[in-house]
Amino acid sequence: MSKSFSKKGLTKKSENISEWYQDVVTKANLADYSDVKGSIIIKPNAYAIWEKVQSVLDGWFKESGVRNAYFPLFIPYSLINKEKEHMKGFSPELAVVENAGGEKLAEPLVVRPTSETIMYKTFADWIQSYRDLPLKINQWCNVVRWEKRTYPFLRTSEFLWQEGHTVHVKFEEAEAQALQALSWYKAFYEDYFAISVYAGLKSKGETFAGADHTYSIELVMPDGKALQAATSHHLGDNFAKAFNIQYLDDNSQSVHPFQTSWGLSTRSIGGLILTHGDDSGLVLPPLVAPYQAVVVPVNNKDEAIQAECLKAAQKVTEDLKRLGVRVMLDDDFKGSLGFRINKWELEGVPLRLEIGGRELEDKSVQAVRRDNFAKSKVGMKELSHGVPELLMAIQKSLHEKSKEAKLALTHEATTFEEFKAILSEKKAFVRVPWCEEKSCEDAIKEATKATPRVLEMDLISEKVAGKCFHCDNPAARKWLFAQSY
Amino acid sequence: MSKSFSKKGLTKKSENISEWYQDVVTKANLADYSDVKGSIIIKPNAYAIWEKVQSVLDGWFKESGVRNAYFPLFIPYSLINKEKEHMKGFSPELAVVENAGGEKLAEPLVVRPTSETIMYKTFADWIQSYRDLPLKINQWCNVVRWEKRTYPFLRTSEFLWQEGHTVHVKFEEAEAQALQALSWYKAFYEDYFAISVYAGLKSKGETFAGADHTYSIELVMPDGKALQAATSHHLGDNFAKAFNIQYLDDNSQSVHPFQTSWGLSTRSIGGLILTHGDDSGLVLPPLVAPYQAVVVPVNNKDEAIQAECLKAAQKVTEDLKRLGVRVMLDDDFKGSLGFRINKWELEGVPLRLEIGGRELEDKSVQAVRRDNFAKSKVGMKELSHGVPELLMAIQKSLHEKSKEAKLALTHEATTFEEFKAILSEKKAFVRVPWCEEKSCEDAIKEATKATPRVLEMDLISEKVAGKCFHCDNPAARKWLFAQSY
Repeated sequence: MSKSFSKKGLTKKSENISEWYQDVVTKANLADYSDVKGSIIIKPNAYAIWEKVQSVLDGWFKESGVRNAYFPLFIPYSLINKEKEHMKGFSPELAVVENAGGEKLAEPLVVRPTSETIMYKTFADWIQSYRDLPLKINQWCNVVRWEKRTYPFLRTSEFLWQEGHTVHVKFEEAEAQALQALSWYKAFYEDYFAISVYAGLKSKGETFAGADHTYSIELVMPDGKALQAATSHHLGDNFAKAFNIQYLDDNSQSVHPFQTSWGLSTRSIGGLILTHGDDSGLVLPPLVAPYQAVVVPVNNKDEAIQAECLKAAQKVTEDLKRLGVRVMLDDDFKGSLGFRINKWELEGVPLRLEIGGRELEDKSVQAVRRDNFAKSKVGMKELSHGVPELLMAIQKSLHEKSKEAKLALTHEATTFEEFKAILSEKKAFVRVPWCEEKSCEDAIKEATKATPRVLEMDLISEKVAGKCFHCDNPAARKWLFAQSY
Repeated sequence: MSKSFSKKGLTKKSENISEWYQDVVTKANLADYSDVKGSIIIKPNAYAIWEKVQSVLDGWFKESGVRNAYFPLFIPYSLINKEKEHMKGFSPELAVVENAGGEKLAEPLVVRPTSETIMYKTFADWIQSYRDLPLKINQWCNVVRWEKRTYPFLRTSEFLWQEGHTVHVKFEEAEAQALQALSWYKAFYEDYFAISVYAGLKSKGETFAGADHTYSIELVMPDGKALQAATSHHLGDNFAKAFNIQYLDDNSQSVHPFQTSWGLSTRSIGGLILTHGDDSGLVLPPLVAPYQAVVVPVNNKDEAIQAECLKAAQKVTEDLKRLGVRVMLDDDFKGSLGFRINKWELEGVPLRLEIGGRELEDKSVQAVRRDNFAKSKVGMKELSHGVPELLMAIQKSLHEKSKEAKLALTHEATTFEEFKAILSEKKAFVRVPWCEEKSCEDAIKEATKATPRVLEMDLISEKVAGKCFHCDNPAARKWLFAQSY
């Protein structure tokens, strides 16, 4: 089949989602490749989305008593080594500084791949008594994991994230915190990114290096692959023991506390692009769009009419700004109307408000939704509720579409034959009764490249009867399997 | 003289400002030392101040059309090398990654000391025509400069900052942008940090590596030394030529544009601590204090009265929150009143509102200012204007004190003998008629450790008659000299 392009010069999403993705990333001015392998330049259009992520999550964190701090970028090599499981998990991906200030360093420094080790070394000093707990720290920063195969946003050698780290007296309190973080992430994806997710527990093989157990948010991408979109780890007292974090309880006994860590990164932006984008480019949910609407006075050969359109557009822009709508005015008539429309569609602005001669006459704007291209007239006098209503409708409709797509790509199977048959047709999530053994997990991955993505929250306490879909062991619970990004 | 300590266990500021500073940094929970040479852990109390810096400056930047982006942490070594002057300026301070992902890299990567090189390589792609200009980009990030002598906040191997980078058609437009950045920084220090500053031009010897000229903000520290607190560089077309940034002007000629870069870092927090702090610890200006007021119900042996005080304090806290005051309640009666007061004074909370038995009776709070310990009664019913008024009074008074201190530490001299006599008594800023020659600058530094800090803005066009205070050349203008941090 010969490749065809959409009118924007993009590869069609349905034909080659990978090329489509790379086209959108560069043409919608989201990111550029850099000279450093696997590092991207996050351009203003994408960074503005990241700022929305930050402001929403940071508000939730702070409300619950989490405080922001900043720990060093560099970690002495010996610290990374302290928690053996943790070290194994990250050692293949480390970038190392051995020379600085013109001299060879006495000890190599690792560029942080995550900050458990350097933070917990310090937490051991901060925590003396049960009155110092709970300790709840978060940081927004860059981290580096040297990846073999990279992909803008989805897998880059350097990325931006937040990492929350908490310390608690009781195992159950740490559990509640880990679940709280998971629910923040779920709420963020569903309510702001308008993406329907799967949230739940990770298998042994997919658990964070050094953790007791890991929860994650998994997105079902349009190609049926899974994107791990945020994780929340209950660390047990493993790190507390390795880093000698202890407190005196009310009986003056030295005790190791329980810890959590949880993070969400710029990878989320990749998930957002893949989920909602279409053959015309990026589609942004209004709640996280840097600009929710663009006002476009229509080009007109009659200069007087065009000037009138511009004047009306300026007023509409000002009125909407006063209402709190994030709106911009496109007053650049140098391009044709088609060229201007293409640009805003490509960049994913949720709502386009056109004002031409006809709209001037009947004192209205023509509203065009980015998500479904539906057109409607909104009277100039009805803008104050008409525009917010349209934006909310877009937000809701994107979320519904995402849920439908997720369900359409989720199947059930009870045997390995069924499982393979489903995956041979099209990549997808498959829900199966599974024994939860690591050896079984490895064999399934070897045979199909699929891995257990998540045990959904509401299935955690649902034991199932019968056999594992793959081996002869009894099944435990129903897990979602898929290939992952 | 034997060392004496204040009641907080701090070294007295007047006796040893350096030890006092390190005491305040650790005891007020602003920063901890880390295992990595010269890197500090920015604790929540200090990071919250940095968040205030970010929110104020970021708002100003965005209003003027600057957009945030994020460029890679790592810079290929060859890029740093492109602008020869620039390279010379930074090469002694670079941290270098040669191994990553378990392999030796084909080309070493430098951890960014600043981002001119990696950004401008990309700007060359972004800029094609005059219609792409002006380009105004900013990023908030970490940078690394491997310093021999480090000092918390003031000079650390890794620090946080913002770096603004703009590109313009005309030299004059770049000049206006460089001055705009300087005036943002001045307004921030004066209006938010309540610090009276010197703002002006840097000498040749102190100009940024590769720049046409540099402006800076200089703070007069209480020990008479200068702290360079922000810089703004007019880069001319030097980097544009080195990185081949060109645009087609309206005559379709290829032209190199003009550039600026400007930054303010977490060093500013060091200046804030040093300027306002006293023997009781940190003193924060209300506009940047994470908590502007703390409500302290007074300990009472009569539990019923203590409970009443707590209840009243809770109501005051809620009322002030509703007014938009950043207020916290200290409801921890486990410590004595003295212990509790010490803690809030040490951490610099601008206003303490105490509620004891007497205040319950006459329906008031006792307000204690952190800046001068002045006590006053505020009726419960007058809180809504009484507290904001007190906060504004503190803000204003801190700024005035800072201005007085700056002027008291600024002297005039016309000969090198006078200059040396002033500095032999006490470190200070000295304003002198100077020839502006690099060789003279070097000789003065060699003899006195003092360097030209800045040519004040309103003295830039004031030519002076007579001879240079140091050499036999004619004087040009009056510069401020001082030793610097």
